[in-house]
Amino acid sequence: MKFPPVFERYRAEIDAELRSALADQTLPMYDMMRYHLGWQDEHGHPRSGSGGKALRPTICLLACEAVGGDYHRALPAAVAMELVHNFSLIHDDIQDDDRERRHRPTVWSIWGKPQAINVGTAMRVLSSLTLLRLGEHDVPALKQLCVQRVLDESCLQMIEGQYLDISFESRLDITTDDYLEMIDRKTAALIGCSLELGALLGTDDKLTIERFQRLGRNLGLAFQIRDDILGIWGDEGLTGKPQGNDIRRRKKSFPVVYLLESVAGETKKELVNIYSKESIEDDDMETVWRNLEALDAQNHCQWVAEQYCERALEEIAGLTLSLSARHDLEGLAHFLVERDS
Amino acid sequence: MKFPPVFERYRAEIDAELRSALADQTLPMYDMMRYHLGWQDEHGHPRSGSGGKALRPTICLLACEAVGGDYHRALPAAVAMELVHNFSLIHDDIQDDDRERRHRPTVWSIWGKPQAINVGTAMRVLSSLTLLRLGEHDVPALKQLCVQRVLDESCLQMIEGQYLDISFESRLDITTDDYLEMIDRKTAALIGCSLELGALLGTDDKLTIERFQRLGRNLGLAFQIRDDILGIWGDEGLTGKPQGNDIRRRKKSFPVVYLLESVAGETKKELVNIYSKESIEDDDMETVWRNLEALDAQNHCQWVAEQYCERALEEIAGLTLSLSARHDLEGLAHFLVERDS
Repeated sequence: MKFPPVFERYRAEIDAELRSALADQTLPMYDMMRYHLGWQDEHGHPRSGSGGKALRPTICLLACEAVGGDYHRALPAAVAMELVHNFSLIHDDIQDDDRERRHRPTVWSIWGKPQAINVGTAMRVLSSLTLLRLGEHDVPALKQLCVQRVLDESCLQMIEGQYLDISFESRLDITTDDYLEMIDRKTAALIGCSLELGALLGTDDKLTIERFQRLGRNLGLAFQIRDDILGIWGDEGLTGKPQGNDIRRRKKSFPVVYLLESVAGETKKELVNIYSKESIEDDDMETVWRNLEALDAQNHCQWVAEQYCERALEEIAGLTLSLSARHDLEGLAHFLVERDS
Repeated sequence: MKFPPVFERYRAEIDAELRSALADQTLPMYDMMRYHLGWQDEHGHPRSGSGGKALRPTICLLACEAVGGDYHRALPAAVAMELVHNFSLIHDDIQDDDRERRHRPTVWSIWGKPQAINVGTAMRVLSSLTLLRLGEHDVPALKQLCVQRVLDESCLQMIEGQYLDISFESRLDITTDDYLEMIDRKTAALIGCSLELGALLGTDDKLTIERFQRLGRNLGLAFQIRDDILGIWGDEGLTGKPQGNDIRRRKKSFPVVYLLESVAGETKKELVNIYSKESIEDDDMETVWRNLEALDAQNHCQWVAEQYCERALEEIAGLTLSLSARHDLEGLAHFLVERDS
C-alpha cells in the first residue's frame, strides 16, 4: 500500500524548517541529533535518505489547511511535533535497550546512554524554542500560550504512557482496557495534539478544534494497533523486521494482551509461564503463534483498529470541509489502518 | 557558616506552590517525583525533612522583590526553576551512576533507569506547565512568552553543560577555560536565569533585568567553584561526604583541572596516568592530594571563586536598590562563596 500523496505535499518545507531549528547549533551534541534525524552519518558526513514518514508534522499542516488556514503559519508547530516525537524515540531506544532503528545503530549504541539522555532532553527543549517562532508568523501571544499548553500537556501524557508501558513489562494481568488507556497516552495524545495544533493555528472555532483533537486520538489508536499487528504479522520485506519480531522481543503489544486476557486454564498457565521467563525459546514462539492463530487474533485486532478508524471517519464527517480536504483526511485514516509498513 | 535568613523568608510559599504543581497527579510516576523532592519515602508515606536549600526559587523571588515587584507573581517561575533543577539532578544521577543523593537512594537506584528517565523528563515538562500559571497572576501574555524563552534557552545551556561535562570524562587536556565555559552553562545559566526571571517579573527595565542576569551568572560560577572545593576539602560532618570524595570519584572538578593544567614533566605523566586508569587506588589518592597541596590549589580555587563573587558584588553596586535588598543580595553572594555545606 503506497503512502498517500499528502505525505509529499509539505515534505520539503517541513525538512527545511526542521533543519533551520538546528541550524545555529555547533556543539557535537547537535550532530548526534542530525544523525538521529537521518541527515548525517555518525562521523558528521551528510547522507541522503529520509528519517521517517514525518506523520505528525504532515497531519498538523493538513489540519491547518483543512480549516482554511495558511499552513505556513503552522510550520513551527509541525516541526515541534516532529522534535517531540524524535526525542521520545531517542529515549525509548535507551529504555528498551534497542541497538537499531530504521536499520541504523541507535544514538545510545554509538555515543553511550548518558549522552543519549542529553540528546533526547535537549531535543525536547528545542521543540519548545521552535514553537516560539510562531511569533514571527504573527500568531497572537495568547494563542501561542495556548499552543504551548496543548503541546506540554500532550507531551506529559506521552511520557505517562511510556511510564505505563514500561510498568506493564513486569505484569501479566494487563487487560485490553489497560492497554488501550496506555496507548491513548503514549501514541494517541501526540497524534491528537498534531491535528489539534494545526486546527488551532488555522481557525478560532473551538468546536472544530476539539473535533480535530478527537479525530487525532482515534487515528492514533488505530495507528498504534495497526503498528502492533505489523510487529507480529508484518512482511519482513516491507517492515524491515522479521515476522514475529514482537513475539521474540516479548512485547506486550495489543495482540498478546488480547491473547492473555482471552485464554484460561492450562493454556493460560502455559502462556503466563512463557511471559514470565527471562527470554523466549523457539518452542515458546511456536506456542504463542499457535494460540494467536487459534484465537483469530490478527482479525480481531484489525477489527478493533477499524472501529477507531470508523470513529475518526465520523469526526471527519462532522466537519465542514472542502471536497479535497475531506478526501485527504479520509485517505489518511484509511492508510493508517491498512498500511503494511 | 549559617544560611542567611533569606532562605527562610519564602520557604513555606515555595513549598506550597511546588506541592500544588504536583497536586492533581495520581500516577505512581508522580510519587517518584515526591520521593525525589523529599516529601515521601519510597512507599509513598509522608516524611519530614527538606529537599535541599531551594537556592534557585529563593533568589528568583528575592530578585523580584529587589526590583520592587510583588514576589507572589513570580512564584510559578520560582517553582519552575526548582523543577528544572531537580529534573537535572534525577538525570545526573542516572548518568553518573550515583546511588545516593542527600543520604537517600536515588530514584533510578530504586525504580530503575528507564523509569527514572521518564520521571526526570516529565518533571521538565511540568516546569513548563507551571510557568503557564503566571497567567493567573495577570502577567501579560507577551511577558509570559519572554519568560518561557529565557527558561528554555537556559535549560538548553544547562543540558549543553552536562553534555560537555560528560565529554570531559574521557579527556585529559581540559583547560581551566574549558572548564569555566562548561560550568557557565551547566550551573551558572540556571542561576542566572533564576535572577533574570525574578527581575523580569518585577520590572520592565531592560538594563536592570540584564544586570540581574549577569549577577546570577557570576554567582553561579562562584557557587560551582566553591562546590568543587567542598567536594575535595569539605568537612564530612558538614557536607555529609568524606574528605577527598571527588578525588576518589575521579571527578575532573576545577581543582583537578587546574592541577593537570599547571604541572609538567614527570608529575604530569604520573597524574595523567592516574586519571587514565579505570579506578583510583589509595596511593593515587595520596599523590593527587600531595600535588594539590604543593600547588596551594585550594587557595587558588577559592581566589578564583572570590573573583566571580567580586564581579557579582559590582553588579549589585550598579543596581538601584533599597538598603535591605542590597544587604540581602550581598549577604547571599558572600554566603555562596564561603559556605561550608
